[in-house]
Amino acid sequence: MKLLYPTSLSFNPDKVKSQFPGETISLHSYDVKASTIPSEHLDAEVLITWANAADNLKFAVQNLKTLKWIQSLAAGPNDVLNAGFESSKVKICTGSGLHDETVAEHTLGLLLLAARRFDLMRDFQNQGKWPGHLGGPQSDQEAGTFRTLKGARITIWGFGNIAKSLAPHLIALGATVKGVARSAGTRNGIEVVADLDLPKVLKETDALVMILPGDASTKHALNKERLEYLPSHAWVVNVGRGTSIDEDALYEALEGEKIGGAALDVFETEPLPEGNKLYGAKNLFLSPHAAGGRPRGAEELVVENLKKFQAGEELQNII
Amino acid sequence: MKLLYPTSLSFNPDKVKSQFPGETISLHSYDVKASTIPSEHLDAEVLITWANAADNLKFAVQNLKTLKWIQSLAAGPNDVLNAGFESSKVKICTGSGLHDETVAEHTLGLLLLAARRFDLMRDFQNQGKWPGHLGGPQSDQEAGTFRTLKGARITIWGFGNIAKSLAPHLIALGATVKGVARSAGTRNGIEVVADLDLPKVLKETDALVMILPGDASTKHALNKERLEYLPSHAWVVNVGRGTSIDEDALYEALEGEKIGGAALDVFETEPLPEGNKLYGAKNLFLSPHAAGGRPRGAEELVVENLKKFQAGEELQNII
Ligand SMILES: NC(=O)c1ccc[n+]([C@@H]2O[C@H](COP(=O)([O-])OP(=O)(O)OC[C@H]3O[C@@H](n4cnc5c(N)ncnc54)[C@H](OP(=O)(O)O)[C@@H]3O)[C@@H](O)[C@H]2O)c1
Ligand SMILES: NC(=O)c1ccc[n+]([C@@H]2O[C@H](COP(=O)([O-])OP(=O)(O)OC[C@H]3O[C@@H](n4cnc5c(N)ncnc54)[C@H](OP(=O)(O)O)[C@@H]3O)[C@@H](O)[C@H]2O)c1
Repeated sequence: MKLLYPTSLSFNPDKVKSQFPGETISLHSYDVKASTIPSEHLDAEVLITWANAADNLKFAVQNLKTLKWIQSLAAGPNDVLNAGFESSKVKICTGSGLHDETVAEHTLGLLLLAARRFDLMRDFQNQGKWPGHLGGPQSDQEAGTFRTLKGARITIWGFGNIAKSLAPHLIALGATVKGVARSAGTRNGIEVVADLDLPKVLKETDALVMILPGDASTKHALNKERLEYLPSHAWVVNVGRGTSIDEDALYEALEGEKIGGAALDVFETEPLPEGNKLYGAKNLFLSPHAAGGRPRGAEELVVENLKKFQAGEELQNII
Repeated sequence: MKLLYPTSLSFNPDKVKSQFPGETISLHSYDVKASTIPSEHLDAEVLITWANAADNLKFAVQNLKTLKWIQSLAAGPNDVLNAGFESSKVKICTGSGLHDETVAEHTLGLLLLAARRFDLMRDFQNQGKWPGHLGGPQSDQEAGTFRTLKGARITIWGFGNIAKSLAPHLIALGATVKGVARSAGTRNGIEVVADLDLPKVLKETDALVMILPGDASTKHALNKERLEYLPSHAWVVNVGRGTSIDEDALYEALEGEKIGGAALDVFETEPLPEGNKLYGAKNLFLSPHAAGGRPRGAEELVVENLKKFQAGEELQNII
């Protein structure tokens, strides 16, 4: 059985091979930025992808005739689907879980930046000025402010793996966490509601963290109408996919000070084009899709799925 | 017994009074910014201070003849001492403990800012540019980098109350935490070393968090020589007192890229004077003494100490 693994991250094939002693598992590295895959590897059955060039994936669709399973290391394998792979023809698995820690860490950082206004502090520093109004004796969290995570009501929209990794850190800092997902219920001890309850939940939110996937069902999930439910001090943090926010509606809300601010790691178009009005939007902090981008534990996921694949079991993270 | 409490924060006198039913405890508010204290209150026995004007404290030294105990709500009651109060004549207690959560939260934010380079992201945003090199597929923590708290070696110099509040958050994110204090030993499960071991510990540090008090013993604790022990990727985060860093030596280290960066909340002179070279120092982030400044649980501390005071016991946080 032949697997191709990417050179775009540090991946140790021996960690995989050692789990299958005596078996004819062969692992070969390939260059994800190349526009072809070497001819001697066109018989691969498994393709592990990470940060592939679009050309590379298009070449794979047309030329890997024996491919049975694509293991993406990205949480959202949009690139694989865009290249033309279809889950009806080849098993496609996401790297969901490999980004939980890194995205959770970044999100925590963005929430603290928002509460402590590191963005404004930086602007003052760059002007050689002391932002005295942001320091010294100051009021603590009060109703109608978002100045600390302690006592803050944080709503996580898209309560999947990343959210489950993030929530304990928020709770440890004293926040009250609620989730929104496709189905309601208690998950990891946290109350999760469905879309239907959004109006009520958004009204009681100091910071809205969006961690939704980028599919048709989430397109402009946060639109003008829903933005209006948020209190005027509430922050929006998006680390899921840019398409889940109507950026024009968000821009209007920011400029009109209808919400407290936004810290965005993802955008409808990435890189955000030069000249885009969001660069200069009031109380907006821009992070360049930097939350994840560093899969952790890729070898373990490949081992797990390879065992399942051989046993004919349903693969982990299959779409 | 008469206590004066400040109007410079939201302080609820009933929370105190209700703990002493039937007793003649009287609480009166006073304006900490006024240059005098009303004549009918010059017989106060207890003065609670927070963000007082220097004049106000000087007036208190000279006019509160029956004063027995000053309860500062600041972690470092430098203002009370500078006004001329002496601990040999009146009991002086700090607000140590009231700032643990808030300073810990801010420090965590600064560490994440440093690891994720929110400072540079902001600079790019302000120029209308996408900082692509800080996002997208990227390498995770590697030896010789500080890019995440996971696996980071964080040294906290000044391992007191704030450090104990901070450390669990860092550990939950995967960091390895060590402490430095006046005496060595294990505290809250964390290895704490004394000054003697600084050279060794600093060499093995990815981020140095300084939470030292501002007394003679800590003056320029981080000097040129000690800065040289730090690896060239290490960050320095100071939320204790500005005097504990030799700012000239730090500036040289930053400009010469001998360390990774510095996030400073405190400075030798505050506000940092306009024109000070630190504003523009390479890889420096400036926060305007904003970590604490919001005492939490002041009433509880006053109740606890009032009980001890009445019982003739040693007060909490006495200096
Ligand atoms: N910024 C970055 O660098 C970065 C890195 C990694 C991932 N991401 C993004 O983060 C997304 C989430 O990752 P994850 O690992 O947490 O995924 P996950 O475990 O699949 O969780 C997704 C969550 O979204 C909910 N959801 C999906 N569609 C919904 C809808 N239409 N309405 C309401 N809720 C909906 C799901 O609800 P149910 O639980 O009810 O099904 C689930 O709770 C990824 O898809 C990816 O786009 C971004
Ligand atoms: N930025 C802000 O807004 C803000 C807010 C609040 C407080 N602060 C500052 O933070 C400081 C610490 O607060 P805290 O409540 O954590 O104080 P703390 O509980 O008294 O702890 C102070 C720590 O520093 C250590 N230390 C003192 N002198 C030392 C020396 N010469 N060498 C090595 N270690 C020394 C002590 O060691 P031992 O344990 O061995 O005695 C102790 O571990 C305060 O004094 C204040 O200046 C800043």
